Amino acid sequence: MDHPGADFDESVHQPNRLAILVVLREAGRADFGYLKSALGLTDGNLGRHLVMLENSGLISVSKGYEGRRPRTWAVLTPRGKKALADELQAMRKLLARLDQPPS
Amino acid sequence: MDHPGADFDESVHQPNRLAILVVLREAGRADFGYLKSALGLTDGNLGRHLVMLENSGLISVSKGYEGRRPRTWAVLTPRGKKALADELQAMRKLLARLDQPPS
Repeated sequence: MDHPGADFDESVHQPNRLAILVVLREAGRADFGYLKSALGLTDGNLGRHLVMLENSGLISVSKGYEGRRPRTWAVLTPRGKKALADELQAMRKLLARLDQPPS
Repeated sequence: MDHPGADFDESVHQPNRLAILVVLREAGRADFGYLKSALGLTDGNLGRHLVMLENSGLISVSKGYEGRRPRTWAVLTPRGKKALADELQAMRKLLARLDQPPS
């Protein structure tokens, strides 16, 4: 029997990191303040998740200005897009497995 | 915008705990040795996950014998069945959200 959790990678599967990747997929890019309020995270907590995602090569982070306001933007990397697609595929596979009638 | 990770509860969502609940749903009940080999976990690691799941009221654990061999059996509680169903529903909701064409 396959291990039904083996396709899930904690760097993507953890709910707040998954949410960050989903928001970035939907929004294209997002800044720190937006992610913080959308996900209800503290500065420290969001910062740690972004560092983990950046160190895993799943997002890239850049600093810039919007008018005079400094902004920190995050975008998905190609590897991040692939990792999110793999996570969604693992969810589909698990759901399909459990939709089978019991044998 | 909804927080796309907010429906996931870490007590169920964590891959090894999710896998334990899935195996128990499929198998009805499973003993410690079976779970350990199916999930590739150490005694300590599996033991910690089972304690967390039992303390959350998601599984119940009982000791017994099979022939002369002592066994530790785990089964889903009604609350555990509900929690697993909620997790699967949260996965379906996230997949449906991302299947929408971008607006």
